[in-house]
Amino acid sequence: MRPAIAKNPPRDKNFACEKALSFLASPAMSKTTRFNLDQYFTRVSSRVNVALDKLIPDDTVEPPTIHKAMRYSLFAGGKRIRPVLTLAACDAVNGKSANAMPLACAVECIHTYSLIHDDLPCMDDDDLRRGKPTNHKIFGEGIAVLAGDALLTQAFELIALAKPPCRYTIATMVQELAFASGSLRLIAGQVQDLENESRRATLDEVRTTHMNKTAALLTAALRLGAMAGNATAPQLGRLTKYGQDIGLAFQIIDDVLDATSSKEVMGKSVHADQKNRKSTYASVLGVEKSRALAASLIADAHRQLAIFGNRATPLHVIADFFLTRKH
Amino acid sequence: MRPAIAKNPPRDKNFACEKALSFLASPAMSKTTRFNLDQYFTRVSSRVNVALDKLIPDDTVEPPTIHKAMRYSLFAGGKRIRPVLTLAACDAVNGKSANAMPLACAVECIHTYSLIHDDLPCMDDDDLRRGKPTNHKIFGEGIAVLAGDALLTQAFELIALAKPPCRYTIATMVQELAFASGSLRLIAGQVQDLENESRRATLDEVRTTHMNKTAALLTAALRLGAMAGNATAPQLGRLTKYGQDIGLAFQIIDDVLDATSSKEVMGKSVHADQKNRKSTYASVLGVEKSRALAASLIADAHRQLAIFGNRATPLHVIADFFLTRKH
Repeated sequence: MRPAIAKNPPRDKNFACEKALSFLASPAMSKTTRFNLDQYFTRVSSRVNVALDKLIPDDTVEPPTIHKAMRYSLFAGGKRIRPVLTLAACDAVNGKSANAMPLACAVECIHTYSLIHDDLPCMDDDDLRRGKPTNHKIFGEGIAVLAGDALLTQAFELIALAKPPCRYTIATMVQELAFASGSLRLIAGQVQDLENESRRATLDEVRTTHMNKTAALLTAALRLGAMAGNATAPQLGRLTKYGQDIGLAFQIIDDVLDATSSKEVMGKSVHADQKNRKSTYASVLGVEKSRALAASLIADAHRQLAIFGNRATPLHVIADFFLTRKH
Repeated sequence: MRPAIAKNPPRDKNFACEKALSFLASPAMSKTTRFNLDQYFTRVSSRVNVALDKLIPDDTVEPPTIHKAMRYSLFAGGKRIRPVLTLAACDAVNGKSANAMPLACAVECIHTYSLIHDDLPCMDDDDLRRGKPTNHKIFGEGIAVLAGDALLTQAFELIALAKPPCRYTIATMVQELAFASGSLRLIAGQVQDLENESRRATLDEVRTTHMNKTAALLTAALRLGAMAGNATAPQLGRLTKYGQDIGLAFQIIDDVLDATSSKEVMGKSVHADQKNRKSTYASVLGVEKSRALAASLIADAHRQLAIFGNRATPLHVIADFFLTRKH
């Protein structure tokens, strides 16, 4: 009954990957410098791109418009941080990363849907994302809403493809992703973000918003990868804390970059927070204290990884990158 | 780590249920008249309302706005046709309907999300739904988009709560719902609906749109209930055909009612299709031929139910109701 979904090879094997990853030829990677994060991201995110291209219907499947719109944002040069975390977490617990791939793709679908809806005129009203026109600028608002809906729905279809190991079930994995993406976490964060625009928020409220809007999905990405690798409970606990640390740090640095960087460097509108008088770490705590807080969170993230030994090298380097990124 | 979700008893035990079900005190129910559809719907949809009230966070859970918005549309007097079909299909295959309840609630969450997004200014731009202001009229467009997203996400969290019988797994059920709600069915239907507004569609195209937009989710509602009841493959096949028949008939009658009824009777704007010059069964085939086609589909639906004997009485009566409804 289901039409066969075209399983094409990627039509542009490089996608926007190389451009997006140029940022990784970057500095100060502490003791883990010998590990080449640039090459690692290129290798792993290429595998993610190939898998996404196989799993997501293309515009030969009816109705073409929706699949074009889904793919426009999905292949718009995203850094694939979340799926890379999923695969790295699976590796850290010595799992087979192929088992984690549908989960990695599912998390990227959720992330992409949230960006499409977040950019809508009735939300953040952004015209640019990763240096390109946002989904609704190309396809119109109606299709952009539906493309987001379709990617969100697709994410759960992908979860159902995973091969669960003995300690975890598909049901657990579906719950994990639904909880992190739902009204108590990711969507809660979007709501709090909208509400913080019209009033002065406390640091605690900004923190909660960031934990919901950013850290929850990053943490779920790691936890799903660990589950696919049949992680023990202590391993899952460490990766959860690591995810919360790097998630909050990522968003604090985002606040700092929005306050201090330029549109050319960021590839999207900046100083939006100031324009919207939005409370952020930068505005409430100041830029320097925010940077110091992010650094202490990353230090804690490194400590959480101790039990994994060398298998966690990519996760160490990613944590450092979150702190030192320039865009 | 997850905050406990308040499991309150329903605060208004009748919800909008009685009002919504007044339509069921209606006529001509062929040979199944002795079965009281009104009482059946009241009983079953009350159970659905109690379950939804337990399962969906209320406004004591942060952030209150999103949970208020989700519940506003979820408890706005919907007829609960889809969850009732889920439970009736489970009964038809002699399953325990309690096992089908999370699935019934999941399907209702999907239906409600699709209405919220469909009513948005960038889609159908409707101010009224079931005689009440639409979600975005009360909460604003941003929150309405997010409330839809949250209900869609919640649906999959609910699926994960189901107790799968031996023939089916949670993975199968997640795939069933995701496929029916995704870019190849429900969302495809919405896209085709948007696209049919700007051009003259053929009858075949209108049929495809209706099958995607309406029949797919009704069919999934039935199939999920049957799966929860551990249906055999032939039973599942019959219920699938029944769902496609009543789904298409439902939408044909919807086209006819939009062309022939009044705002007062329908509780929502009418003649919208004419205003939008949208191709419908009424406009392409004419009102009388459309009614006759719907009648023949319902006759086929009855034939599909033969193997279930008396256990399918509610499904017979619901099929007749789909044909004879006035709003």
